[in-house]
Amino acid sequence: MSTVKTAELVAIDERRLLRRLDDLAQRGALPGGGIFRALYTPAWTSAMELVTTWLKEGQLLTRRDAVGNVWGRIEGSRGGRAIVTGSHIDTVRGGGALDGALGLVAGIEAVTSLWERFGRPTRTLECVAICEEEGSRFDTNFWGARAIADRIEPNEAERTRDAAGTSLADAMRSVGLDPANAVQAVRRDIDVFVELHIEQGPVLEDHGPRLGVVTTITGTIHQEIVVRGQPDHAGAMAMSRRHDALVGASAMTLAIAELATRMGDPAVATVGTIVVEPAQVNVVPGIARFTVDARHPDAPRRTELITQIGDACKAAARERGLVVEIRTLRDRPPVTLSPRVADVLRRACRAAGLDPRDMASGAGHDAQVLAAAANTGMLFVPSIGGRSHCPEEATAAEDVVLGTRALASALRELAYQQ
Amino acid sequence: MSTVKTAELVAIDERRLLRRLDDLAQRGALPGGGIFRALYTPAWTSAMELVTTWLKEGQLLTRRDAVGNVWGRIEGSRGGRAIVTGSHIDTVRGGGALDGALGLVAGIEAVTSLWERFGRPTRTLECVAICEEEGSRFDTNFWGARAIADRIEPNEAERTRDAAGTSLADAMRSVGLDPANAVQAVRRDIDVFVELHIEQGPVLEDHGPRLGVVTTITGTIHQEIVVRGQPDHAGAMAMSRRHDALVGASAMTLAIAELATRMGDPAVATVGTIVVEPAQVNVVPGIARFTVDARHPDAPRRTELITQIGDACKAAARERGLVVEIRTLRDRPPVTLSPRVADVLRRACRAAGLDPRDMASGAGHDAQVLAAAANTGMLFVPSIGGRSHCPEEATAAEDVVLGTRALASALRELAYQQ
Repeated sequence: MSTVKTAELVAIDERRLLRRLDDLAQRGALPGGGIFRALYTPAWTSAMELVTTWLKEGQLLTRRDAVGNVWGRIEGSRGGRAIVTGSHIDTVRGGGALDGALGLVAGIEAVTSLWERFGRPTRTLECVAICEEEGSRFDTNFWGARAIADRIEPNEAERTRDAAGTSLADAMRSVGLDPANAVQAVRRDIDVFVELHIEQGPVLEDHGPRLGVVTTITGTIHQEIVVRGQPDHAGAMAMSRRHDALVGASAMTLAIAELATRMGDPAVATVGTIVVEPAQVNVVPGIARFTVDARHPDAPRRTELITQIGDACKAAARERGLVVEIRTLRDRPPVTLSPRVADVLRRACRAAGLDPRDMASGAGHDAQVLAAAANTGMLFVPSIGGRSHCPEEATAAEDVVLGTRALASALRELAYQQ
Repeated sequence: MSTVKTAELVAIDERRLLRRLDDLAQRGALPGGGIFRALYTPAWTSAMELVTTWLKEGQLLTRRDAVGNVWGRIEGSRGGRAIVTGSHIDTVRGGGALDGALGLVAGIEAVTSLWERFGRPTRTLECVAICEEEGSRFDTNFWGARAIADRIEPNEAERTRDAAGTSLADAMRSVGLDPANAVQAVRRDIDVFVELHIEQGPVLEDHGPRLGVVTTITGTIHQEIVVRGQPDHAGAMAMSRRHDALVGASAMTLAIAELATRMGDPAVATVGTIVVEPAQVNVVPGIARFTVDARHPDAPRRTELITQIGDACKAAARERGLVVEIRTLRDRPPVTLSPRVADVLRRACRAAGLDPRDMASGAGHDAQVLAAAANTGMLFVPSIGGRSHCPEEATAAEDVVLGTRALASALRELAYQQ
């Protein structure tokens, strides 16, 4: 990768950008508020059709790949490996209007603006609507980015099912895709992938500035913790004789939050689910099962956090005569993004008038998967109140515009080099 | 009520007693261990048929009343209001062989032994198999005792349903009972009700002696507590900015257990159920709902415990920027049993060779409902390990025999007065 340092702020069509974000938010809008665009559902198909229309309006060559990612392409005058931007089109259930959608709509706006204003790039420039990232329908995630990065397992589509029992393979067929062809989605000719995204946390809002360059995507571990005590009569068993699994799990939950807090930002740890047995109002819980999501972008610190959590759970169990079992469900180490793409993004931010914050992403992103196949960078804009994955998810319009301009400037530097 | 002070230990048929307990435990035995005899189910019908056989073998006049309680009666030579013993035949799901069953089988043994050894009593002597106490099938409990004590509400059988949606009324019809006749089960001619029961807690095992006379049945409150925070991205939202409903509920759960422990025996408080929303591994819980079961046999102390729990929950919520709502689901004040029947039971225990412990029952019992309709007493035998409502529920055979002998002695004093 070689770049031309332009540090040039590119003009975009702000109204078109904001109107398209509003239009996309209608696809999959839920009656009670929030959005749900799950992979290969009618809401998803409708959103993909809308995106395809915009790509065609922008005079991009459009195609749908073997897993349903939609690409818009401008062939570079000098060819070579492609410069790509975009994000995912799917959402969590009851999600907001920007997670994924911003990077996708802003990517189309940036590429279209460059094409309109500067003509054909020297490097091939592409925009991609990635079919799935959230894992909100099937028991898998990063489906679109993994297909591009050749990370799909044999028969994965046949094995993977949604809550209704439909296989991912059958869902593909329902939208005219043949799961046997999934491998055709692999791309080995991408030089750079750049993704604009909302931060989904409060750092930029609390500490500024209004743009962040992601240097690392955090490492995430998911664990299931099972606490075994003794079910007893809630009226007749003395407090001092109990082995209450939920009291133990409660002490563990508090310790887990406290350990992440004490380690300090950007360490986070969350107990997101809990169930007890026998789950009767008048029976002391004999079993409590909960999940832990623990993250840190620094691999040794993440290991330290996980170790501390395990030790704290064992100590809380010992103290109460409980047995604790810890099982790892998923372990994704931190991913370092491309320093060279980060440099391009920093220059683009400065062209937009501010020095960006270098930061880690606490959320997972397509970029962390595509980092295995391309030089990858991410740009963050602030999330109001740090909220995301909820109907309240929002970013100030001027920040949406600012982020899109910076993205366009970065793509200008990357794709229009002489 | 007038009594003759006999303080006479009555011989019983130990082998018959223990064999019948074993036989009854086969009715509703689950393949994986434990017993489930739910009201008006085939297991319940089978158990009631077995009990009816025993009553008939003992030459008692047997009848099934309008809600399915089965009675065995020996008419007293001088008539008058009846002396009754017995307990419930239903169990919790996966319960043990003694909760309810002991008081019922021991009651039959005591009455039969008296009838065999001493002939017709002066007072009418009855044994009752109460159809339901546990609330393990329908969303109600004390169905049998409430029918006897005239505490059934109009249309209650039509309104009350089980988890499968079957009404209590239809379940009655399925075993040949007409719900419209339920009121005919009311008895206004009971002088004394005495119930032998396992303690279901550890007091007698830990501190002795092997018999306890219940002076009070604890007061129970059931509350639902809803904690409202803010659902957030588990990776991107900083710890310091969270309003995690489960972290709040965990602090409340620990505080609730701590408050009851600090108040000291016999105060108990239990969080038996908890659910969170949205219940995803990677989302900070926005809502946590849990139940509290808090008990104390002393009414002012119970009120103090409930107030402390409410205050602690509000403080834990305030500290974390959460909202808490507390709703009372059920409130049963403590019930004081008959001091005169307790005196009879104490004399009977002394006849068996030991001075009984006066104690409160931490569990609810049919006796607390029948206390509104009769002079009521309860006798406890130890539970091994304090365990109950589980397959491990057990009492040493010699304690089963001891309790049954004491019960027979008490009935001898009550029903054979000259």
